[in-house]
Amino acid sequence: MGLVIRNGTIVTATDQYVADVFCDAGVIKAIGKSLDVPAGTQAVDASGQYVFPGGIDAHTHMELPFMGTTSADDFYTGTAAGVAGGTTTIIDFIIPNRNQSLLEARDFWMNNAKKSVADYGFHMAVTWFNEQVKKEMQHVFKNDGIQSFKIFMAYRGAIGVDDVELIGVLDTAHDLGALVTSHCEHGDAVVALQNRLAERGLKEPKWHPKSRPSYLEGEATNRVIQLARAASDARNGHDATAAETQPVYIVHLTCKESMDAVYRARQAGQRVLVETCPQYLLLDDSVYEKPDFEGAAYVMSPPIRPKGHQEYLWNALATGGIQHVATDHCPFRQADQKVMGKDDFRKIPNGAAGIENRMSLLYTYGVAKQRITLQQFVDVTSTQAAKIFGLYPRKGAVQVGSDADLVLYDPKGTGRISAKTHHQKVDRNIFEGFELTGKVATTVVNGRVQWQDGDLRVERGAGRYLKRC
Amino acid sequence: MGLVIRNGTIVTATDQYVADVFCDAGVIKAIGKSLDVPAGTQAVDASGQYVFPGGIDAHTHMELPFMGTTSADDFYTGTAAGVAGGTTTIIDFIIPNRNQSLLEARDFWMNNAKKSVADYGFHMAVTWFNEQVKKEMQHVFKNDGIQSFKIFMAYRGAIGVDDVELIGVLDTAHDLGALVTSHCEHGDAVVALQNRLAERGLKEPKWHPKSRPSYLEGEATNRVIQLARAASDARNGHDATAAETQPVYIVHLTCKESMDAVYRARQAGQRVLVETCPQYLLLDDSVYEKPDFEGAAYVMSPPIRPKGHQEYLWNALATGGIQHVATDHCPFRQADQKVMGKDDFRKIPNGAAGIENRMSLLYTYGVAKQRITLQQFVDVTSTQAAKIFGLYPRKGAVQVGSDADLVLYDPKGTGRISAKTHHQKVDRNIFEGFELTGKVATTVVNGRVQWQDGDLRVERGAGRYLKRC
Amino acid sequence: MGLVIRNGTIVTATDQYVADVFCDAGVIKAIGKSLDVPAGTQAVDASGQYVFPGGIDAHTHMELPFMGTTSADDFYTGTAAGVAGGTTTIIDFIIPNRNQSLLEARDFWMNNAKKSVADYGFHMAVTWFNEQVKKEMQHVFKNDGIQSFKIFMAYRGAIGVDDVELIGVLDTAHDLGALVTSHCEHGDAVVALQNRLAERGLKEPKWHPKSRPSYLEGEATNRVIQLARAASDARNGHDATAAETQPVYIVHLTCKESMDAVYRARQAGQRVLVETCPQYLLLDDSVYEKPDFEGAAYVMSPPIRPKGHQEYLWNALATGGIQHVATDHCPFRQADQKVMGKDDFRKIPNGAAGIENRMSLLYTYGVAKQRITLQQFVDVTSTQAAKIFGLYPRKGAVQVGSDADLVLYDPKGTGRISAKTHHQKVDRNIFEGFELTGKVATTVVNGRVQWQDGDLRVERGAGRYLKRC
Amino acid sequence: MGLVIRNGTIVTATDQYVADVFCDAGVIKAIGKSLDVPAGTQAVDASGQYVFPGGIDAHTHMELPFMGTTSADDFYTGTAAGVAGGTTTIIDFIIPNRNQSLLEARDFWMNNAKKSVADYGFHMAVTWFNEQVKKEMQHVFKNDGIQSFKIFMAYRGAIGVDDVELIGVLDTAHDLGALVTSHCEHGDAVVALQNRLAERGLKEPKWHPKSRPSYLEGEATNRVIQLARAASDARNGHDATAAETQPVYIVHLTCKESMDAVYRARQAGQRVLVETCPQYLLLDDSVYEKPDFEGAAYVMSPPIRPKGHQEYLWNALATGGIQHVATDHCPFRQADQKVMGKDDFRKIPNGAAGIENRMSLLYTYGVAKQRITLQQFVDVTSTQAAKIFGLYPRKGAVQVGSDADLVLYDPKGTGRISAKTHHQKVDRNIFEGFELTGKVATTVVNGRVQWQDGDLRVERGAGRYLKRC
Repeated sequence: MGLVIRNGTIVTATDQYVADVFCDAGVIKAIGKSLDVPAGTQAVDASGQYVFPGGIDAHTHMELPFMGTTSADDFYTGTAAGVAGGTTTIIDFIIPNRNQSLLEARDFWMNNAKKSVADYGFHMAVTWFNEQVKKEMQHVFKNDGIQSFKIFMAYRGAIGVDDVELIGVLDTAHDLGALVTSHCEHGDAVVALQNRLAERGLKEPKWHPKSRPSYLEGEATNRVIQLARAASDARNGHDATAAETQPVYIVHLTCKESMDAVYRARQAGQRVLVETCPQYLLLDDSVYEKPDFEGAAYVMSPPIRPKGHQEYLWNALATGGIQHVATDHCPFRQADQKVMGKDDFRKIPNGAAGIENRMSLLYTYGVAKQRITLQQFVDVTSTQAAKIFGLYPRKGAVQVGSDADLVLYDPKGTGRISAKTHHQKVDRNIFEGFELTGKVATTVVNGRVQWQDGDLRVERGAGRYLKRC
Repeated sequence: MGLVIRNGTIVTATDQYVADVFCDAGVIKAIGKSLDVPAGTQAVDASGQYVFPGGIDAHTHMELPFMGTTSADDFYTGTAAGVAGGTTTIIDFIIPNRNQSLLEARDFWMNNAKKSVADYGFHMAVTWFNEQVKKEMQHVFKNDGIQSFKIFMAYRGAIGVDDVELIGVLDTAHDLGALVTSHCEHGDAVVALQNRLAERGLKEPKWHPKSRPSYLEGEATNRVIQLARAASDARNGHDATAAETQPVYIVHLTCKESMDAVYRARQAGQRVLVETCPQYLLLDDSVYEKPDFEGAAYVMSPPIRPKGHQEYLWNALATGGIQHVATDHCPFRQADQKVMGKDDFRKIPNGAAGIENRMSLLYTYGVAKQRITLQQFVDVTSTQAAKIFGLYPRKGAVQVGSDADLVLYDPKGTGRISAKTHHQKVDRNIFEGFELTGKVATTVVNGRVQWQDGDLRVERGAGRYLKRC
Repeated sequence: MGLVIRNGTIVTATDQYVADVFCDAGVIKAIGKSLDVPAGTQAVDASGQYVFPGGIDAHTHMELPFMGTTSADDFYTGTAAGVAGGTTTIIDFIIPNRNQSLLEARDFWMNNAKKSVADYGFHMAVTWFNEQVKKEMQHVFKNDGIQSFKIFMAYRGAIGVDDVELIGVLDTAHDLGALVTSHCEHGDAVVALQNRLAERGLKEPKWHPKSRPSYLEGEATNRVIQLARAASDARNGHDATAAETQPVYIVHLTCKESMDAVYRARQAGQRVLVETCPQYLLLDDSVYEKPDFEGAAYVMSPPIRPKGHQEYLWNALATGGIQHVATDHCPFRQADQKVMGKDDFRKIPNGAAGIENRMSLLYTYGVAKQRITLQQFVDVTSTQAAKIFGLYPRKGAVQVGSDADLVLYDPKGTGRISAKTHHQKVDRNIFEGFELTGKVATTVVNGRVQWQDGDLRVERGAGRYLKRC
Repeated sequence: MGLVIRNGTIVTATDQYVADVFCDAGVIKAIGKSLDVPAGTQAVDASGQYVFPGGIDAHTHMELPFMGTTSADDFYTGTAAGVAGGTTTIIDFIIPNRNQSLLEARDFWMNNAKKSVADYGFHMAVTWFNEQVKKEMQHVFKNDGIQSFKIFMAYRGAIGVDDVELIGVLDTAHDLGALVTSHCEHGDAVVALQNRLAERGLKEPKWHPKSRPSYLEGEATNRVIQLARAASDARNGHDATAAETQPVYIVHLTCKESMDAVYRARQAGQRVLVETCPQYLLLDDSVYEKPDFEGAAYVMSPPIRPKGHQEYLWNALATGGIQHVATDHCPFRQADQKVMGKDDFRKIPNGAAGIENRMSLLYTYGVAKQRITLQQFVDVTSTQAAKIFGLYPRKGAVQVGSDADLVLYDPKGTGRISAKTHHQKVDRNIFEGFELTGKVATTVVNGRVQWQDGDLRVERGAGRYLKRC
């Protein structure tokens, strides 16, 4: 049975026009005015609503084993919350332990993800490097369609790499034509700061951000960019042109120092891609001052930044400096998980939920507040991620042949975020009480209506794995 | 009679795919594989060729009365040369004299342009300002579809405005929702430098660039940007958000100082759009050292810059910092026009030809040299100009409903630029001897093949005036 | 009768050591340990105190006719307040009206200043420009020892110059080897903003800063710097080296945008000197929100800036980016002067008092808070101003042969600023209630103790005019 | 027997005046006009000459064991060449091997240095770090007067440290109040680039600079600055003020990228000190193209940079951005040392001579070419080094009580640099053929004339070790 969406205002990364969209067999079959559709086709009236390509969240961590526990949403509940919020595709991370085979880790994550309700892909984290790892990177690129490798400059001693390893990853990726994505914080300096604070008994949640200052993110951002340039020059034997440069994608960028490192690199001709998250746009570090250990809910890395950084990121969004807004969705319950760090912020599981609110928050505080245009909204919530990560035009587009992943957004709707009502399996919402303008009226996944007027009808295991090269 | 283009590789600002394009009545009617077309439809085989949207050159000066003479190409010959080079739309300038009515000037230019072979629009230059001018700006915006107003910060004493006038133009445009485009050079300082040089007898062409250093362009670029910000704040009564900011479009930006002023503004959240030209990407100021007054051929304002600036502009192009590559096409014959300044560079008519070579030069030195992608090429030669100047999606797109302005580009072709063979009505080509990769095989204008395999079949007066708002 | 200061810790811009200082006939005659001095020599014990060179305030406006009234301190009361605060030399401004002869204005100001209690010099403001003004600039440089010319980029329509005039001033100064100092705000844009605010009825003091945003100061700062560069290039006929560049001195710089323009210029090799004032280091724009028209006390131009700018200026001070901290002392009484703008902030006389508190404020919030060193304190309150303005080593130094202008500063003293107790002839103090660390124990002017332990014993007319070239 | 220098123009970092200087017992005893001196005092007429404080070269490597050989000048010949060139104090480096005791290395270097003809101090290189090293750092600071610790970010695998070690050094120095000086290049990335080049057979000297690009110096410069900031914050438990920040001193800075990292840090309030060398101001990387392995003479790290960087450094010097010009004097003979890398640039001993030419080169190309003032010349060749490294006012000053180390410089002299005539014990001079303006007429060391009119009369072992805290 097909589906036709009538009279919506289709918004893409470049266009805006009123038309019908006809979907069948999970794919967009036709776009036009007053489309003739087969009898029995389900019809949804989208008059007065926007029709966006389904949201893509390129940074999630479902059921992640981390810091002695596991993130609270599994692939089923996490992707379901995504659908309720207009996100129909995620790219999660396979994260081997140090010395673990990448292939073994892949099997573990692939198996976990089978319960997803919407399509998913994986970045491969490279947490150590030698000749075997190099071969496994080549293997997953060629066999599993994994074209993006993630490295952690933070978390030294655990999943973080040193610069020699990082250079190895960059070289290998460059030879493959793959992308390197990087968590940028100077891990060793963070550890040193944490230890100094701990020695002085400063262990409450509010010291977490002090142990990871923005300039140490800026340092690492600059470093990975320069190492990517060196990797390119090394391979080319001459100063690499922009097109020859190994591109690098900075995950969850939070601050002015990092953004400036990116700007400088681009001015010098390097291709650098940037992702940020709603929490870095909308919250400031006063959240860590909350009493009764409530600051722990906001403990994530990098941390929420002091006032001023947020506006700088909005400016970057508005003027094309940021390519994608993801969530780093990685929830931990306050009651029994965050509390592990009650006496020492270093033991608080890092992370928070976000997948369900991303689209509405960015619409409300971006589009409705006239900070970004509707086209930019689509671009950074969907289209650019699809292009960067090898999913375009299957995802990220409202065009004939694309997957029928669509969001009907009602700009006249309203809402208010609360942990009491969200679908995420966690007892806190870092955006608690935020008012919303507009709402996700309907979410279509693979041509099926799975969210409508507050009714979530997802199907466990309906999601498909996405090869991306 | 319709036209079908078979099996070309359609390249847009975002996509690339093989399909047929069927055009009828001047418009694209269908895009698809193996299209059925009416009998009698003319067919062009585009196998192995790119199909680009027709080039838009947003900066030309056909038959411009300037410095005591008139630019050598009229609207007929100039637009014809454009078609030979793959450019199917121009936006020229109406330039009233100081104290002349904008409407009177409009009539003069509109009349001249009737002989164009391809579609054309006009920017309105505002060369003075008072309440009458303000009313006429409002009039041409509303009645003539002119949504872009040009001001000159150079040429003080002639068509240049002072800052009070500039503020008036910005305010008026802001209230209209119109765009302001600016020629950025500190006109008074240029005059002072020219006079100092002349006093010392330094009057050869090589002193032209010395009288207009890059930092004086950077100064003016920064100034107009800050004044645009003030205009926005003045109107809003608060710090304007990016979306509220009066956008400003910098014409023919040439140098690092200007680009840096733009980067700073964007980082602060302001919308600034940038145009450059092939001569600023491909030539350096050693051209002014040519003997026998040949340096005069390159006398234009701003001048060609010292080595180093070019690479900086390429980097900006490659990383999204520049929106449009136009030409500032404004040719003057060496033999009887440039020679007017034989004894004093200040009297050399400023300008050079370029419309015919823009697309091929940018393809050769941009795409083929891997400095930019094919998508970026289309974006900066056509799509962005259409969007910025109110022509999208009629122009700048290969989509159903758009005007059938198309370029078939053969990447295996070759060429070599020479004044001996170009169609521009001028005796010099500033790119003389440049080798080309690929060639414009076919140009389709309004659904008619007007250039094919070196055969130019344009029709005087076929071009239409384009309202842009 | 001579004077010997025993056992003080002499602090200069480079040194710090304990010694005696013997003064006679207004001049330092000897420095050494346990100096033998003539019988009858007055002795002051400075044990535990710092001995600084007398403060120089290079920016004051005593009895200035401005905005329909006259600043509240005359040369007698103003210089006396200076002595009470450790400032023993001022450089005030001769400000001709537009079209007034510079020489005529000079006579007026020279006559007013005769009542000064301490030495004084004058900058010459150039408020218009033509051949006559040029000759008068040359005249006062050669005959009156005036080596610094001030221009206003603000106050258009009154004492502000346009860019053509400014270029004339820069050229003339460059030929003389004189310095140009500049009040940087885009005057025309300020007027436009003021008018827009007024049209909308926004006329309270809090709208004053909104009408003069920091980016318009940054714009003008950048502009005068670039014009100075052009003046240098024009004169040299080639790219001027740093030493050949016309230096420019930015008065009362207040904001990040201006400081950044200065940094960029220096990086490009230009000599740019910067002055700021305590109010721009210590206050933020929340002062304008004070009720009952009290915000008017802070109305000055440029205005006090939003939070954030202050720290940026402190950083510049700490790292050598700022050369002098002056006051722009220009008090107007709230009761009968500020109130002139009760209904319209545009009519509030611009200015505030400051000369009495400069040294203590900078010591307290700079040295005592470890933001700057003692040597930097001396450098920016005295030595650099002496060097820049042609007074060194007569002023600004504690060395044999220098004028015996000395400040004995007791770091263990304390104080609290209040209009109730200050010597300035004005009913408000913009630093009301500020706590002070240390105090000016003794001020020696020309070898005579004129301030000691709160006792002010100045002598009307004792001050001498200082030729500076 | 005393020494009097008559009628010279004394130039200090701030002053310039004509006077006599009387020295006795190695110390300046009096400065004044027409000084009375004891009978038998040696008199030198300095009319028409400048009297500078003796040059300090804070970066030399005499008889350094390095890359399988030993640098060609020992402490005797190297300091003698310094005296011939006006340098009377050096600060050399103690460089332990990895795992070697700092104290053991100290003994080795202290013993070598006894043959010096002029005074000398030592920086302590820290080439590894653990608790023992920390204690030894504390020991040499307190007992040997060593207040500066050097780390190498390059030379990974040999004397280079990793970031964890670097953080340890910064913390230890911060607690001591000592200075950290840093050789900034990303060592691991350099090794990777070298290996890639070698794999492709690119082993001639010209590939040396390609393996150490400027952006990898900029990266490391930025990194050490940010780590110093973290060290300061860690210690203070809050955002450190400028005065609290651990200062960091960048040795032999060569490029725009590094200078920009320094500028950014200063703008953020951090204290960063910069040293460069004449070769980075005066040569460009075309030297590596010399035939017959002559490029090897210029192999040093960091390498000589492409055109453009030099002018940027001159601008920094002219505007106060650079504090010291040292030499990194470390000569290796072409004939039997440089040739070790005949087949592989990686084996060419890194370094070149420079101590003899530093003062004349900086005078000629700095002062005489009007790029810097005489005062700046003294500041960067002597005074600032003395202040930064704990030698002021014993060294770096012409004042009563200072060591009688003086240079009489004849501005009318001329010269031409050649390996044939220099006193350095090496067969190449990287400034071969450079013309000089002015010459070192006389060098006074500890009150004794040791160089006069080309006659070198140094005394082996006369130099004394300088404690610096």
